[in-house]
Amino acid sequence: EGILERLDAGEVVIGDGGFVFALEKRGYVKAGPWTPEAAAEHPEAVRQLHREFLRAGSNVMQTFTFYASDDKLENRGHTQRFTGQQINEAACDLAREVASEGDALVAGGVSQTPSYLSCKSEDDVKTIFKKQIDVFVQKDVDFLIAEYFEHVEEAEWAVQVLKTTGKPVAATLCIGPEGDLNGVSPGDCAVRLVKAGAQIVGINCHFDPETCVKTVKMMKEGVEKAGLKAHYMSQPLAYHTPDCNRQGFIDLPEFPFSLEPRILTRWDMQKYAREAYNAGIRYIGGCCGFEPYHIRALAEELAPERGFLPAGSEKHGTWGSGLDMHTKPWVRARARRDYWEKLKPASGRPFCPSMSVPDGWGITKGHADLMQQKEATSQDQLKENKSSANKM
Amino acid sequence: EGILERLDAGEVVIGDGGFVFALEKRGYVKAGPWTPEAAAEHPEAVRQLHREFLRAGSNVMQTFTFYASDDKLENRGHTQRFTGQQINEAACDLAREVASEGDALVAGGVSQTPSYLSCKSEDDVKTIFKKQIDVFVQKDVDFLIAEYFEHVEEAEWAVQVLKTTGKPVAATLCIGPEGDLNGVSPGDCAVRLVKAGAQIVGINCHFDPETCVKTVKMMKEGVEKAGLKAHYMSQPLAYHTPDCNRQGFIDLPEFPFSLEPRILTRWDMQKYAREAYNAGIRYIGGCCGFEPYHIRALAEELAPERGFLPAGSEKHGTWGSGLDMHTKPWVRARARRDYWEKLKPASGRPFCPSMSVPDGWGITKGHADLMQQKEATSQDQLKENKSSANKM
Amino acid sequence: EGILERLDAGEVVIGDGGFVFALEKRGYVKAGPWTPEAAAEHPEAVRQLHREFLRAGSNVMQTFTFYASDDKLENRGHTQRFTGQQINEAACDLAREVASEGDALVAGGVSQTPSYLSCKSEDDVKTIFKKQIDVFVQKDVDFLIAEYFEHVEEAEWAVQVLKTTGKPVAATLCIGPEGDLNGVSPGDCAVRLVKAGAQIVGINCHFDPETCVKTVKMMKEGVEKAGLKAHYMSQPLAYHTPDCNRQGFIDLPEFPFSLEPRILTRWDMQKYAREAYNAGIRYIGGCCGFEPYHIRALAEELAPERGFLPAGSEKHGTWGSGLDMHTKPWVRARARRDYWEKLKPASGRPFCPSMSVPDGWGITKGHADLMQQKEATSQDQLKENKSSANKM
Amino acid sequence: EGILERLDAGEVVIGDGGFVFALEKRGYVKAGPWTPEAAAEHPEAVRQLHREFLRAGSNVMQTFTFYASDDKLENRGHTQRFTGQQINEAACDLAREVASEGDALVAGGVSQTPSYLSCKSEDDVKTIFKKQIDVFVQKDVDFLIAEYFEHVEEAEWAVQVLKTTGKPVAATLCIGPEGDLNGVSPGDCAVRLVKAGAQIVGINCHFDPETCVKTVKMMKEGVEKAGLKAHYMSQPLAYHTPDCNRQGFIDLPEFPFSLEPRILTRWDMQKYAREAYNAGIRYIGGCCGFEPYHIRALAEELAPERGFLPAGSEKHGTWGSGLDMHTKPWVRARARRDYWEKLKPASGRPFCPSMSVPDGWGITKGHADLMQQKEATSQDQLKENKSSANKM
Repeated sequence: EGILERLDAGEVVIGDGGFVFALEKRGYVKAGPWTPEAAAEHPEAVRQLHREFLRAGSNVMQTFTFYASDDKLENRGHTQRFTGQQINEAACDLAREVASEGDALVAGGVSQTPSYLSCKSEDDVKTIFKKQIDVFVQKDVDFLIAEYFEHVEEAEWAVQVLKTTGKPVAATLCIGPEGDLNGVSPGDCAVRLVKAGAQIVGINCHFDPETCVKTVKMMKEGVEKAGLKAHYMSQPLAYHTPDCNRQGFIDLPEFPFSLEPRILTRWDMQKYAREAYNAGIRYIGGCCGFEPYHIRALAEELAPERGFLPAGSEKHGTWGSGLDMHTKPWVRARARRDYWEKLKPASGRPFCPSMSVPDGWGITKGHADLMQQKEATSQDQLKENKSSANKM
Repeated sequence: EGILERLDAGEVVIGDGGFVFALEKRGYVKAGPWTPEAAAEHPEAVRQLHREFLRAGSNVMQTFTFYASDDKLENRGHTQRFTGQQINEAACDLAREVASEGDALVAGGVSQTPSYLSCKSEDDVKTIFKKQIDVFVQKDVDFLIAEYFEHVEEAEWAVQVLKTTGKPVAATLCIGPEGDLNGVSPGDCAVRLVKAGAQIVGINCHFDPETCVKTVKMMKEGVEKAGLKAHYMSQPLAYHTPDCNRQGFIDLPEFPFSLEPRILTRWDMQKYAREAYNAGIRYIGGCCGFEPYHIRALAEELAPERGFLPAGSEKHGTWGSGLDMHTKPWVRARARRDYWEKLKPASGRPFCPSMSVPDGWGITKGHADLMQQKEATSQDQLKENKSSANKM
Repeated sequence: EGILERLDAGEVVIGDGGFVFALEKRGYVKAGPWTPEAAAEHPEAVRQLHREFLRAGSNVMQTFTFYASDDKLENRGHTQRFTGQQINEAACDLAREVASEGDALVAGGVSQTPSYLSCKSEDDVKTIFKKQIDVFVQKDVDFLIAEYFEHVEEAEWAVQVLKTTGKPVAATLCIGPEGDLNGVSPGDCAVRLVKAGAQIVGINCHFDPETCVKTVKMMKEGVEKAGLKAHYMSQPLAYHTPDCNRQGFIDLPEFPFSLEPRILTRWDMQKYAREAYNAGIRYIGGCCGFEPYHIRALAEELAPERGFLPAGSEKHGTWGSGLDMHTKPWVRARARRDYWEKLKPASGRPFCPSMSVPDGWGITKGHADLMQQKEATSQDQLKENKSSANKM
Repeated sequence: EGILERLDAGEVVIGDGGFVFALEKRGYVKAGPWTPEAAAEHPEAVRQLHREFLRAGSNVMQTFTFYASDDKLENRGHTQRFTGQQINEAACDLAREVASEGDALVAGGVSQTPSYLSCKSEDDVKTIFKKQIDVFVQKDVDFLIAEYFEHVEEAEWAVQVLKTTGKPVAATLCIGPEGDLNGVSPGDCAVRLVKAGAQIVGINCHFDPETCVKTVKMMKEGVEKAGLKAHYMSQPLAYHTPDCNRQGFIDLPEFPFSLEPRILTRWDMQKYAREAYNAGIRYIGGCCGFEPYHIRALAEELAPERGFLPAGSEKHGTWGSGLDMHTKPWVRARARRDYWEKLKPASGRPFCPSMSVPDGWGITKGHADLMQQKEATSQDQLKENKSSANKM
């Protein structure tokens, strides 16, 4: 059954986790460019990660095609070894191969482009999307996702291109309650995406689950107020970000190499799954930072609604029950829901604060500081742009 | 070249990371039993993790045979599907397969047994070790490691069995500066292990890098004071544990499901590698919590000494240099060593403390609370043993 | 010169600090009742505190008549030893005595009444205020302050009574940006107070300086939008309260006996003084938690604007300059503004969080839980109302 | 009855709190010099503080003669207005005046001298002490205290001088478990002080109560091992200092102007009183940071042993019982011991750490950096000696 049939039937669809962050830690993606050439370069690593998410309960194998538009890949020098087409094709094949091992759909994904940010024309940007879509159609993915857009306008363009395929279309922005980078509110963004043709709308990346669920709620209210209909989806970070500003975790001083203390536990994830469900969200997954066990936690929390546990729960006792045979009685005492729900985990970092001051607060597109440059940062620029670690 | 030739020549040997924790997060190991049946059940997952560590710079592929003694496997019900021999054989084959893809040695590993903790005789315990060793000899591993022992006496027995093979032997205890659970000091422990025949001695698991390096230093002082010689090794946790007591992270209220805020960053790991090196440790690896990128950080820090970067550094800019083309100047400003070294990363958890009070402080082997039981914890026991989350 | 002449001339008026909290710590006020019988019982203690604030730079000696309305004093059993009139008279005498020792005005103060909260009539409530006012007129205070009102309606009634004296009237609410407990916005509250006749309006107590300045700004905007004119004043807590809800610090689990970790430093106070000044506030003082050195910090920060330092600065080097002769060079290095402004002071409490979850969120006047009771809390009630320390 | 009669009879003697810190906050002492000229300059302020401690339960009025040796006063320029003799006499008169209002003894106090630190001879140093002692004898104080010594040698000299008066002598060092600045262990220090003639020995200042009690225990063990006898006393800081090194809180980056987040609550103080009592300490008081309510908490905790509450408890409900009539049920729920004992108070400072790295670790007397200088710190010196706030 297709994605819309499942959602229309009221099923919970579990998404997958974040490929670029997980594969960066495994050694196959470079932080900074964040491009997915590993689909062609190291297919065994990508295949294994797909399998782990499948086993954790994911119903969707999203093609590992984030930032796989030609303009991005060229910019990063990756078109020397593999063409964009090769990377997109390899990603589709891997997703389909693993999806066939279980009950999963394949979703082809596109994301925001350097062309848009460089003020290229609507036609130019749409042409970029079109090239990826051609591969997805040829490889016959089950549906399409336009994700990780900071400007709703570009997301609309993407949806318009995706709609030409006749396949179901989902669209998620990486924004918070303050709206997109042009100040369009989450409610208005959602209405525009639905009007552009998206059947599923929501949020991915940039903020923690609590913030994303809150933002999707605002989208839902906007859509309902406009008399429209949609399905809702959320794929947040697996990092706590109570201190983020409008730009999300990119502006946190810890991004991207010191985010460890912010990683959500599996219990945080169960809370997220429940809150998303209660908010009416039925496509519930994750983005950067989500590892397979985080996805499994979503599937375990919603097992009563779905009627089954994921394969991976074979290796996981619900709410810590795997500890009930432990030698030490005080560790056995942790084999219960109440314990893990109430625990306030310590950081082991007494010299660190609990919150950061984000960099760049208040600076958005159009500011002189943000003019694109091809050269690496100069020493003078480094001096001028002391980051918040120093400002504080 | 063998492990001793490398160490004798003054080379740095990079160990691998923690299989049970990494595979638990990937869905293949169950927390609580922590047994390695995945070597036989899901070889593709184990193979892929070996590959990632190899790519990250590991010179040793340790067989995934932690807790793979027959008494442990039986206790956990795993001998129904696979015999202990099958699991140990599969683990050897996987380690050898991947080691052959690069410059790595295969190390067969044994660890502490339930038999010892249940006060079985020296002969009984040695028989248990012997069964695993037989497989390692038959599969012709390159050297042997006795690791994760809380009592030096059991580790001595293990070393004595391992020595019968004629292969080089390493031995690591999971203890801190306070010594083993019988109160034997790190220095005395090391002397006993060397006298039993271990050529390499050190510490693994239970404590963070800082504590482990400190403890290995105490071992080194003991060995030198005794006029003996040895090589030194450390394979610590990838979790900050400044608040641990003698039992290490097992007694932290966060163990094992809410340790996320304690995870070390890659920069913490570079600091560890340098400190271990300066302390005269030349076999430097990791244990629970170590992911491939943590191992890569060790290899990158010690690249000047070793003369080369690991394969995985193809996807990693040293000290964040991959950010130097980022759009935002304040993110570009993070592309430098000084930034990441000084950053005090926030937890994003303002309602959580930085330190925990460990459970069970002061209770050790022999205490009535620690009598083995086969039944799961009863409701009454749960009530009696409120853990520290409540005590505090 | 009177208070209005000073403010009209653009002078900065420094208020005093919090008497009930300071005298509770000195042993003369009981937490819970918070009544000012010490004015009659222990005049030497009250006189000394007035002197310290005068010396610190206060231009206003506020009579120690907080909660000195007859209905409150009776409720607390204090009318056995002293009549309300005696307490109010003694407080006026002490304030005048010390004010005469320097350049200070005497302000008679009234605050919210149990009568209002018990739904007594407007006439009844006004009669209560009238009794205090009669003393203030007889003792010829220089101006009047209606302070610590959670409901703007009661504050209006107070202002109306105070206006009958012909003396200048200031009015401050103990509310935050969310408005009064009936949901009236700060802007609307301010407009109503000005229309009732207050020449000075603002905020006191319940929130930290940052929040109070923010709220006074909202009041100022409201008054200006309404085409009205007023002077502005702020007398915040000396406790950091980023985690407060609408009810302010009363609902924090730490109130009132474990607020120590939240106490502002003198440098925090200088920041507050500057921000208040920049926001157009010219009557700048403090409330609960403010000790004399906090007031001195306000006077020191605004010394450039005022043209002089307070007497108490005789014993204080600006920005730590008193350390410049210290033996240790690293302590001497602290004798500079840059050091203290940037320092993020540690709590020394690694087992404590940085933020609390306030009790009682969302429960306001009218809720059954809030029905007045004369009996002390029963054991059953204690069990039902576990506070957030347990909930968390 | 005298101090020794009380202690010999097994009575608990409650000391007083810290005058220099309390009066610095009230505006009468300058941080840096920390000299007690206020005894002569502002007697009303000193008298009031004595009264508050008496009311809080103190059995000892210690003369406000800290750093009142002639060499220190001259160094700080205070001998222009008042001679050292005048200050010492005024301090004795104030202490006696207030002691007579209740059941308190007067103790004359001397502390370490610049002469010793400048390597003056034993005779020179003893002459300095002698001048203060002459005043104490003339004013007939009840006993003598030598306090705040970092080197046991200087403390011995002081005790020897004090003994010439025939009055009882107490001696406290400001050291921690690591011993005095020459590395003499707490046990050895105590033995030397007892042998020099002190009847009461212990610790004051520099560390928090937990550390001081631990150190006094070590002193007691030393004295008992040596077959000697003494009474024990502790007068710690009212600041949490788990992160201090050997030099105590002077080396914390927060010293002395940002220590607020570290201030102990009254409940922390009750814990201290109990632990000190259990350790066999019977003279229990405080030092820097102790306010009257902290002393009252000691007296309240030990009321069962002493048989009475202090006068100040008239204004204090035990364990928060004063809240039992509060309007809000969740605040009433705080009127119980269990609540306050378990509460982990939040700092309200999410951008601050919980622990600091002390400055100057490892640098002690004799190091070139510590050569005395008369000039204020130069700009060059400031640059060289960046404090830990920057190092971190």
